[in-house]
Amino acid sequence: MSCCQHEAGLDPGFDTAFTVDASRITFGRGCIGEVGDRAAALGMRRVALFTDPSVARLELFDNAQRALRDAGLDVVTYAEVAVEPTDESFRAAAAFATDARPDGYVSVGGGSVIDTAKAANLYATHPADFAAYVNAPIGEGRPVPGPLAPHIACPTTSGTGSEVTGIAIFDFLELHAKTGIASPALRPSEALVDPDSTDTLPGEVVACSGLDVLSHALESYTARPFTQRAAPARASARPMSQGANPWSDLGSREALALLGRYLVRAVTDSSDREAREQTMWAATLAGIAFGNAGVHIPHAMAYAVAGQVREFRPSGYPDDKPLVPHGMSVILNAPAAFRVTAAADPARHLVAAGYLGADVSSAVQADAGEVLAGHLVGIMESVGMPAGLADVGYTDADVTSLAAGAFPQQRLLGNAPIDVDEALLATIFRGALSYA
Amino acid sequence: MSCCQHEAGLDPGFDTAFTVDASRITFGRGCIGEVGDRAAALGMRRVALFTDPSVARLELFDNAQRALRDAGLDVVTYAEVAVEPTDESFRAAAAFATDARPDGYVSVGGGSVIDTAKAANLYATHPADFAAYVNAPIGEGRPVPGPLAPHIACPTTSGTGSEVTGIAIFDFLELHAKTGIASPALRPSEALVDPDSTDTLPGEVVACSGLDVLSHALESYTARPFTQRAAPARASARPMSQGANPWSDLGSREALALLGRYLVRAVTDSSDREAREQTMWAATLAGIAFGNAGVHIPHAMAYAVAGQVREFRPSGYPDDKPLVPHGMSVILNAPAAFRVTAAADPARHLVAAGYLGADVSSAVQADAGEVLAGHLVGIMESVGMPAGLADVGYTDADVTSLAAGAFPQQRLLGNAPIDVDEALLATIFRGALSYA
Repeated sequence: MSCCQHEAGLDPGFDTAFTVDASRITFGRGCIGEVGDRAAALGMRRVALFTDPSVARLELFDNAQRALRDAGLDVVTYAEVAVEPTDESFRAAAAFATDARPDGYVSVGGGSVIDTAKAANLYATHPADFAAYVNAPIGEGRPVPGPLAPHIACPTTSGTGSEVTGIAIFDFLELHAKTGIASPALRPSEALVDPDSTDTLPGEVVACSGLDVLSHALESYTARPFTQRAAPARASARPMSQGANPWSDLGSREALALLGRYLVRAVTDSSDREAREQTMWAATLAGIAFGNAGVHIPHAMAYAVAGQVREFRPSGYPDDKPLVPHGMSVILNAPAAFRVTAAADPARHLVAAGYLGADVSSAVQADAGEVLAGHLVGIMESVGMPAGLADVGYTDADVTSLAAGAFPQQRLLGNAPIDVDEALLATIFRGALSYA
Repeated sequence: MSCCQHEAGLDPGFDTAFTVDASRITFGRGCIGEVGDRAAALGMRRVALFTDPSVARLELFDNAQRALRDAGLDVVTYAEVAVEPTDESFRAAAAFATDARPDGYVSVGGGSVIDTAKAANLYATHPADFAAYVNAPIGEGRPVPGPLAPHIACPTTSGTGSEVTGIAIFDFLELHAKTGIASPALRPSEALVDPDSTDTLPGEVVACSGLDVLSHALESYTARPFTQRAAPARASARPMSQGANPWSDLGSREALALLGRYLVRAVTDSSDREAREQTMWAATLAGIAFGNAGVHIPHAMAYAVAGQVREFRPSGYPDDKPLVPHGMSVILNAPAAFRVTAAADPARHLVAAGYLGADVSSAVQADAGEVLAGHLVGIMESVGMPAGLADVGYTDADVTSLAAGAFPQQRLLGNAPIDVDEALLATIFRGALSYA
């Protein structure tokens, strides 16, 4: 296909439309108290309530549990969700759900909790070998055969956007790789986004989750445009990650503007309620955007960065195992990745930098990658991120293995605005070792 | 309640959260061809296909019909929809649906067609006296008892936004008043927004529908904030018209920016495909915004303007009866209304004017109403609108009757940023007689 056909989007093999597929979202302080009434309105009578051991100790969790019981619902609680879940922890949660036989799910926690509830709902509703629904080529990538039980997701970090996406991410232990399950059927029926939940988060957690959000917005905005993606065989089979489009652009731009204004404040001053609230709203908008457009290179690389961790233990997180928090594993790749993708659409990269707060008034297109990367590095520094992959324990000797670990993420890499092979991934990983 | 409590939104009686409740939307040239596959995916086997006599003659309608049949669906067509429907025409459509016993609905047309399909679906699915579901105080305002059959709405004007709202509007003939039915259950399951449909529209129709869109965006943006609306008794009963909120603000601002850039081009040059496409995208965004926030004074007044018409027959519309097209009946009130509402939040009115393209660099807050009204009048002039209600046949002698006709629209008037009584309505109607 010629370059011009690409640009005009006129090739009959390319898509000409995009689909907006949003779930119901309620946003506002105290809205977790709505969970009982909303669960009942969705027809739930016996609720599986998912959380993790830290969230289970919060007042917010008590409020959710009480609201469910006050609505006359039978509640069975699963508080064993693992931070950064694995195939093993997904299986354990699914076994719980299969035994407990709930008719609906409520998840209160970060992305790990929400993703675990999605997986438990999936395997309890449509039992199958674990690999069946896992993304190909790691799993079989089999389509989910029908709707799941209703699920209300209540995020407690301003991060993953999992509450509005049909994606569940986990570590496949045997393969030392992160992968996931992706299907519109997994998207929660409703989300209750209550900024009260972020008031008590450590600054480190707000930084990591906020930078994940920032990358959701940047990756969605710079993803391969929907007019350069092959048209689906059937309209109703248009993929969730359909590429950048006017709808995802709108949410991405607003999320970038909000994060440029509020993220550093939200991280550095835990009493800044306005900043934490606006960061959470940005997370919701970016979640809608990336659930619609899809992410690409930084997230694909993050799977390898998180999966191949050796000794790194970040402050502000449980220290029972080495861990690169998801947001950190994403953002450390981002400056290097955008330096490379900028060539595909320099103007768009400059606009993104401008929304984030960079001064782009005198920037020329040839500088686009550098301007965006430089501004990102400045934000990362302001919120205490490591200054590159070297600071979480990787060296030049790991680059080949990291590239090999990221390359199977074809669902994401295919969404990049440029063609990506292992050699290019190695180049980007090398560029991400140090931003100092 | 004190003013300060109003401003801070801290009164325990006020709401603290807002709900986003979007339906699935596909946007893009040619996407009407997806209707067969999508109807089948929604489980339809026997489809009631609604349209009006003019749309029934278009290639677009043939494409929809063919796509449905190619998907193996049984199609029964109702092409008798009245432009500006009435209780009689709604009843006739409902009788058709009751007889035809479809298991799903597809509407191809403007707001009249989509609204008629909503009403037919409602009364065929949940039979009741006609007044049962009509908004109080004109009807009983009874809640819709359950979900309706699936409905795919395919708008052919870049106007009403009906494809994404739970509202159906009609003339109650006996009362000479426009009113409606409003329930989340009425919102179509999906919308297919195909800008190809607007290529053949007369400029007058693009002007009227585009100005309706413009007012959707302006009214949503200036509506009473959700934090100044009473909290619902039950969370799941939060009203659709919940007031301005960050979600509706986002769609409103983008719609205003697009209309400021493209509306005059779309009206004055029917070959400007980009302008017509962007106007239709603005209509979709404004529909999402007003379906979420609600409209207020200009729409409430429009019900009386349209309902009390005597002799006016606009060009570009069927001339079988006197008619003030919906968009015209709305926009003629808008400058006078915003002159009055600006006092409630001058900054917001100035921001709106700026998004529309007004130069607000040297404007002060005291000028906000005048700046917005003046810019609106300029746009109206550029697209050939009458220069006030006098030009569609009203005089100062009609003001009392118009105010009395608009005042029952309490669902809308309660959404205004200021308190509205009949005397204030009369003042605004008087201000709307002539902008010359």
